[in-house]
Amino acid sequence: MVAPTREDRFSFGLWTVGWQARDLFGEATRPVLAAVEAVHRLSDLGAYGITFHDDDLVPPGSSPDERARILREFRAALDETGLVVPMATTNLFGDPVFKDGGFTSNDRSVRRYAIRKVARNLDLAAELGAHTYVFWGGREGSEVDFGKDVRAALDRYREAIDTLAQYVTDQGYGIRFALEPKPNEPRGDILLPTIGHALAFIHELEHADMVGINPETGHEQMATLNYTHGIAQALWAGKLFHIDLNGQKGPRYDQDLVFGYGDLLQAFSTVDLLEGGPPGGPGYDGPRHFDYKPLRTEDMEGVWESALANMETYLALREKARAFRADPEVQEALAAAWVPELARPTLAEGETYADLLADRSAYEDFDIDRARTQGYGFARVQRLAVEHLLGVR
Amino acid sequence: MVAPTREDRFSFGLWTVGWQARDLFGEATRPVLAAVEAVHRLSDLGAYGITFHDDDLVPPGSSPDERARILREFRAALDETGLVVPMATTNLFGDPVFKDGGFTSNDRSVRRYAIRKVARNLDLAAELGAHTYVFWGGREGSEVDFGKDVRAALDRYREAIDTLAQYVTDQGYGIRFALEPKPNEPRGDILLPTIGHALAFIHELEHADMVGINPETGHEQMATLNYTHGIAQALWAGKLFHIDLNGQKGPRYDQDLVFGYGDLLQAFSTVDLLEGGPPGGPGYDGPRHFDYKPLRTEDMEGVWESALANMETYLALREKARAFRADPEVQEALAAAWVPELARPTLAEGETYADLLADRSAYEDFDIDRARTQGYGFARVQRLAVEHLLGVR
Amino acid sequence: MVAPTREDRFSFGLWTVGWQARDLFGEATRPVLAAVEAVHRLSDLGAYGITFHDDDLVPPGSSPDERARILREFRAALDETGLVVPMATTNLFGDPVFKDGGFTSNDRSVRRYAIRKVARNLDLAAELGAHTYVFWGGREGSEVDFGKDVRAALDRYREAIDTLAQYVTDQGYGIRFALEPKPNEPRGDILLPTIGHALAFIHELEHADMVGINPETGHEQMATLNYTHGIAQALWAGKLFHIDLNGQKGPRYDQDLVFGYGDLLQAFSTVDLLEGGPPGGPGYDGPRHFDYKPLRTEDMEGVWESALANMETYLALREKARAFRADPEVQEALAAAWVPELARPTLAEGETYADLLADRSAYEDFDIDRARTQGYGFARVQRLAVEHLLGVR
Amino acid sequence: MVAPTREDRFSFGLWTVGWQARDLFGEATRPVLAAVEAVHRLSDLGAYGITFHDDDLVPPGSSPDERARILREFRAALDETGLVVPMATTNLFGDPVFKDGGFTSNDRSVRRYAIRKVARNLDLAAELGAHTYVFWGGREGSEVDFGKDVRAALDRYREAIDTLAQYVTDQGYGIRFALEPKPNEPRGDILLPTIGHALAFIHELEHADMVGINPETGHEQMATLNYTHGIAQALWAGKLFHIDLNGQKGPRYDQDLVFGYGDLLQAFSTVDLLEGGPPGGPGYDGPRHFDYKPLRTEDMEGVWESALANMETYLALREKARAFRADPEVQEALAAAWVPELARPTLAEGETYADLLADRSAYEDFDIDRARTQGYGFARVQRLAVEHLLGVR
Repeated sequence: MVAPTREDRFSFGLWTVGWQARDLFGEATRPVLAAVEAVHRLSDLGAYGITFHDDDLVPPGSSPDERARILREFRAALDETGLVVPMATTNLFGDPVFKDGGFTSNDRSVRRYAIRKVARNLDLAAELGAHTYVFWGGREGSEVDFGKDVRAALDRYREAIDTLAQYVTDQGYGIRFALEPKPNEPRGDILLPTIGHALAFIHELEHADMVGINPETGHEQMATLNYTHGIAQALWAGKLFHIDLNGQKGPRYDQDLVFGYGDLLQAFSTVDLLEGGPPGGPGYDGPRHFDYKPLRTEDMEGVWESALANMETYLALREKARAFRADPEVQEALAAAWVPELARPTLAEGETYADLLADRSAYEDFDIDRARTQGYGFARVQRLAVEHLLGVR
Repeated sequence: MVAPTREDRFSFGLWTVGWQARDLFGEATRPVLAAVEAVHRLSDLGAYGITFHDDDLVPPGSSPDERARILREFRAALDETGLVVPMATTNLFGDPVFKDGGFTSNDRSVRRYAIRKVARNLDLAAELGAHTYVFWGGREGSEVDFGKDVRAALDRYREAIDTLAQYVTDQGYGIRFALEPKPNEPRGDILLPTIGHALAFIHELEHADMVGINPETGHEQMATLNYTHGIAQALWAGKLFHIDLNGQKGPRYDQDLVFGYGDLLQAFSTVDLLEGGPPGGPGYDGPRHFDYKPLRTEDMEGVWESALANMETYLALREKARAFRADPEVQEALAAAWVPELARPTLAEGETYADLLADRSAYEDFDIDRARTQGYGFARVQRLAVEHLLGVR
Repeated sequence: MVAPTREDRFSFGLWTVGWQARDLFGEATRPVLAAVEAVHRLSDLGAYGITFHDDDLVPPGSSPDERARILREFRAALDETGLVVPMATTNLFGDPVFKDGGFTSNDRSVRRYAIRKVARNLDLAAELGAHTYVFWGGREGSEVDFGKDVRAALDRYREAIDTLAQYVTDQGYGIRFALEPKPNEPRGDILLPTIGHALAFIHELEHADMVGINPETGHEQMATLNYTHGIAQALWAGKLFHIDLNGQKGPRYDQDLVFGYGDLLQAFSTVDLLEGGPPGGPGYDGPRHFDYKPLRTEDMEGVWESALANMETYLALREKARAFRADPEVQEALAAAWVPELARPTLAEGETYADLLADRSAYEDFDIDRARTQGYGFARVQRLAVEHLLGVR
Repeated sequence: MVAPTREDRFSFGLWTVGWQARDLFGEATRPVLAAVEAVHRLSDLGAYGITFHDDDLVPPGSSPDERARILREFRAALDETGLVVPMATTNLFGDPVFKDGGFTSNDRSVRRYAIRKVARNLDLAAELGAHTYVFWGGREGSEVDFGKDVRAALDRYREAIDTLAQYVTDQGYGIRFALEPKPNEPRGDILLPTIGHALAFIHELEHADMVGINPETGHEQMATLNYTHGIAQALWAGKLFHIDLNGQKGPRYDQDLVFGYGDLLQAFSTVDLLEGGPPGGPGYDGPRHFDYKPLRTEDMEGVWESALANMETYLALREKARAFRADPEVQEALAAAWVPELARPTLAEGETYADLLADRSAYEDFDIDRARTQGYGFARVQRLAVEHLLGVR
C-alpha cells in the first residue's frame, strides 16, 4: 500500500479515533483518547489535519482555566506536528438541552442558546485557522409529524445560519459554512435530509454565497442515494465545500464504517470524481475528511489500524482511478458509450428552439430504429472499471 | 364515507385506471381502457380532472387521422362530463429510444428527439387547457457510475428545461412546469432523486420562476424520506406546483398503492398540511392528483373500487384533520409542546447578533437544567393524532 | 378510548419505561426509574405484567445484600399490585465483555461467562414465576465477514441454547425459551436475523420442543418484512411463544416506536391475527408485550402517556378487528375473494397426484381464460379494512 | 482476466441472456434470443450449463409439433457443445392466471393447474438430465393482509411441494427441489421471504430430505440481509442445493446486476465461502449459477460482455480468496482474532452444565477486565481482506 502524506490532505475528526464505542445498547469499550495524542498519532500516520466539535476538545463543564490549558496543549501539539485544523463544528446534539434540536427547537430559549454556543466555537475555529465550519443538525427534526411545523422550522434554520454568517463576515473570519445532511437517526426524520434538500435550502439564505455543504457518504446511502451522483450535483452547483468520507451498507443504522468498506464500487467512482472525474466539470480541492467510527470490538491498536485503512483505501482507489482514466481501452470504451458527448450541448451553437422545431432530422426523419437498437456499451465500461478496481488488468 | 365532489379537485392519470397490469414478471391482466370511458367513469366517481402522457392518449404510431379522431372523442367526453385536464406530461421512458434517458441521453440525437416530443405534446396540453406540465425523467440516470457524466447531464437537463420553458413562454401557453423526483427504478440511480435535489436544480435554471415540483408520496418514501416534511420544504420554497398522492411501504420497488395504503399515519399529516397544516405557512391549492396502480389481481371492478378508495381515504383524512385542528384539547397540547412558538423568530424584533451575544440570559445565565429536563409533550400530541385518525375520540 | 385491564394481558419491559434516553449521539434526558415505581405505575395504567433483563433489575456490581434488598422490594411491589413477571431475559449486550457477542464470541472464555450469566438469571426468573425466557443475541454477529465463521458460530449458538435448555429441564423450571431475531444494529449483521432464520435454527436443536420465538414488530420491518406474515408462519410452526410489539418506519435505525406508530395498517392485521385472524389457524394466547422506547424528548409524564398509548392503540385495533370480522359485508367480500377457500386442500380428500394428473379439467380442459380475467376482489377487502380502521363505517 | 472453463461449473438461466429488457416502464430493447444460440454462445464463453423455465424454452401456446422441434434443436445444441442442464424451473408468475399465485392462489383451480404445469416440466427436466428443480414462488403472496390467510397458504404450499416431491420420487427422477426465497416484488409481500423462512418451511415438509434452497444474492440483500451469512446458515443446515449469484444495491427494486456489481466486498466473502471458507464447515459443490439481467441499455454485444463479466468476476474473486487464505499474515491475523477458536466447543469434552456452573474461573474469578478491554483485531482482518480484494498486496 502507498503511504499517506501531508500532500494528500487527509483529515480526521477528533471524535472518530476518539470514539469510546459507547452505543445505544452498550457501554464504552475504549478509554478516553487525549486530543494531544490524537494529533501525534494522526500525524505519524500521514494525516494533515484534525477537526473537532467544541465539546470533543473541551469537555462541557470545564473551567476557564482548564479550557485554556487544553487549548494551549492542543496548539502546541499542532505546532509540533504541523497538523492543521481545516474545519471545526459544534456539538448541538449531545446535551439533553438539544433533545428537540438547536436552531429549530420548539423552545425559543434553546434556539438562542444554540446560536450562542456556535458563536463561541466560531471564535475558536477562527483562531485555530479553520476555513470551514460544519453544521450537522442531527437533532433538528421530529418523530411526530404534528409536533413540528416544518415551514416555521426552516424559517428558524435560515435565521440561525444567516445570523451566524453575518457574525463571521463581520468578524472577518474567512470561514465558510458547510451544512451536513442526514435523513434520520438520531431523530425519526431530520430536516435537510439529503444533499438536495440542503442545496435547495442554501438558495433561500441571505448569505447563500458563503454556505455550501459537507455531504457524508453514509448519510446519502442511508437514503438509498448514489453518493457520487450527489456530490456531482453539489460540485455542479459550486457548493461542495467539504466532504465526509466513510462506509455504509444501505438503509439501516448509521454505520460510519471505514471508507470503502460499504459500497466499494461506488467508493471508486467517488474518488475518481473527487480527483477530477470526467474532464471539464468543476472539481473539488478541499480536505479528504474521514468521519467514521472504529469498530466497537477494537482496542486502540485497531483504532489506528482502521484510521490508516481509510487513507490507504483512498490512495489505492486514487491510483486505480488515474490508471483507469489513462487506459486507452477505457478511453475508447467511454467514447464508444458517448460519455464525452454528453458535454456537448443539445442545441448547436446559436440554434434556437425554433430551429430545432424546424429540424426534420431531429424528429420527423429521425432514424429512431437505429437509436432504439443501438447498445450504449455501459457493460463494457463497467467491466473495465471492475478490472481496474480489482487490479486484474 | 363522504362522497367526492368536483370541489374536492381530485384528478387521476389516465395511465392509472388504465394500467393493464403488465409488470416486469408477467403479462397484462386487464384489457385496454378507452380514454373516453375513463373520463366518464372518473366523472361518475366524483373526480374533477384527468391527466395523461402523450402516448397514453394517442398510441405511438397513430396516423394523423387516428390522432385527430382520438382527440375529438376525448374532448367530447370532457365537454359532456365537465372533467378538466389540469396537467399533462410526456412519456420519455417507454420507447426503447429512451433507454439511456431523454434530455440526458449520451446520444445527442435522442436528446433532440426528446425535446421535440415534449414540444409537440405541450401544444396539445395548452389546447386542452392544462396549466401544469410534469416532467418525470424516469430514464435520466445510470446503473454504471462511469457511464454517465453527472455534471454534464445536469447541464443538458437544464438546457432542455430552459429551452422548453422559453418555448412555452413565447407561445403564451400559461403553463408552469413541475419536475417529479424519484430515486431509482427503472434506472439504478435517477438524476434529481428527491424533492431536495429537484428544488436545488430549479434554482440553477434561467426560467426558475416557472418551474416547480410534482412530488410523489411513494417516490420520497422509497428513499426513506418523510413525504410531509418534503412537501413542507417545497411549500416553504414556493415550489409545490402539483402533487402525486399514493402509497408505498418504504424502500423497495415502486408500489404505487392507493393513497393511505402505505404509511397511513403520514398520509394523515400530508392531508393536514395540504389542507392548511399549522397556521401561517404558505399552502397548496392545486389538484389532488392520484398516481397509483390498481393491484394486478383486480379486474375493472376492482380498478374503480380502488380509484374511489383514493378519494374516500383523502376525504376521511381531511375530515379528521379538520376535527384535529378544531379540538381544544389538541390546541392545548400543541401549545404545551410549543409548536406555535416555532413561528416566533429566535431574535427579537430589531435584535442583532451583537445583542444576542450580549444577552447573558441566553447563555451564561441560561437555566439549562430546566431546558434539559422539560418534556416536549410530543407523546401526547401523537396520541391525540392517532385517536383522531382511528376515530376513537 | 377503552381502558386496559388485567385480562388484556399487557406487559412491558422494565427497560422500556425505564429507558433514560441515552443514545449514540447524546446523554440521558431522564432520571433513573426505580423498578418499584415502574411496577406501581404500570399496574395503575392497567398492565398485568412486567419483564426485565437481569441488569435492569439488579445493577451490575451490586453486592449480594443490595441484590437481596432490590429483589425483596421488587417482590413486595408485585405482591402489592398483583403484577406478574411472565418473562425475563439476560443482558448479553451492554457490558463491553460482550462486544463480540456472548454465546458466539470468538473468545471462548466469554462464551462460558455468557452461559453462566444466563443460568444465574434463569434461577431468578423461575423464582419470580416467569414461564418464558427470551434470548436476544444483539451482539451475536459481525461487521467483518472474514472475522466470523458463521457455521461455527451456529454450532456454538446451538450448544449454548441446548446446554441452558437442559439446565432448565433438569431444574424443572417450567420455562420455555423464545429467541428474538434482529437483522442488524448494534452489529453490522446479526445472526438469526429474521423470524425465519430463528425458526430454522430451532429445528437443529436437541431441545427444539421447548424453544420458540419472540419476534419484534420493528425488527422484522427493519428487514422490509411483513410482520403479520412472519408471526403467521411462526404460529403455523407452533413456535410463537412470546411477542414484542412496537412501531418502526421501515429499514433504518431501530426506532422502538409505540405500537401502531409505524405501519398502522399492518398493526391492524397483526392485532387481528393475534386475536384469532382467519378462522381455523393455530392462535396466540401469550402476553401482549410492548418493547418500545419513549421518545427522548419526553419527561416521565410523556413516558406514561406513551406506555398507555401502546395499550390503548392495541385495544382500539382489537375492537376494530372484531367489528371487521363480524361485519356481514366484510364476510361477503372475503368470501368473494376466496379467502376461506385457501383452507381447502388443493387435492380432494383421498385424491393422489396420479388422480390429479389424470384430471383433464385441471389442465387440458381448464378454463384458463376465466381464471386469467377474473378479479380477486382484494381492492374491496382493503377498502373495507381501511374503513374499519379509520372508524368511518 | 482468467478465462472460464467447464470445470468452473458456471451456468446461466436462458432467461438472463435472453431477457429482452422489457420492464414495467418500457418496451423491449432487444430481439428474441434463440435458445440454440444461447447454448452456443454460453458454451463459447466457457459456461458449462444452461437452465430454463418451461416457458422460456417452449413459448406458451406452442403446438405439440413446435414443442417437439424446439426440444430437438435444443438437445442437438447441447450435444454439440457439451453444455448440460443442471437445473430447470417452472414459470408460475408470468401468465395472468397466476396473478394471485400458483400453489397458494385463493382460487383452488389455479392451484391445481399450477401443480400440473410443474409436473409437466419435471418430466422434461428429468429427461434433460437436470438434478435440481427450482421453485421461485414470485406470485405467492399478497398486497392486502386481510386477503391472504397465511397459515392456510403455507398449508397449501406444503401440500404442493410434497405432492410434487412424491411424484418425483415415484418416477425415480433423481431430482432434488430447491426453494428460492424473495421478500417482495412482484407481490407486495412474498411468502417464504428469506433464506430463513424457506429453511424453516422445509422442516415442516413430509419430504424435507429432498428439499433445499436456491438463495439469490440480490433477494437477500433486498431485505438488508448478509448473503454470505445466509448461505452459511443454509450450508450449516445441509440445505444449500443450488445458488443464484448476482448483484444488488440494497433495499430497492430487484436489480439483477452482474455478480459483484452490487456489494463487491460481500461478493468476495461469498466466493470465499463457496470455495471452502473457514476450514471445517460443510461446503458447496453445486453449479455457480448466475441469475442476472443484462442492462436494458445494451445490445447483444453488451449481453455477452456482461455474461462474461459474471464469470470473470467470480474467478478473480476465487483467486483472491485462495491467496487470502494462503497468506501467512492473514492466517496470523485470523488466529489473533480467535476466528478458528470459534470452532472449539464452549464446553470441554465431557463437560456438563453442572461442571460449568461449578467452574469458578468461568464466572466468579473470570478476568472480565481483560475480556472487556482486549481488541478483537477485526480491523486488521478487514484491512487485509480489502488489500487482497484490490490487489494491492
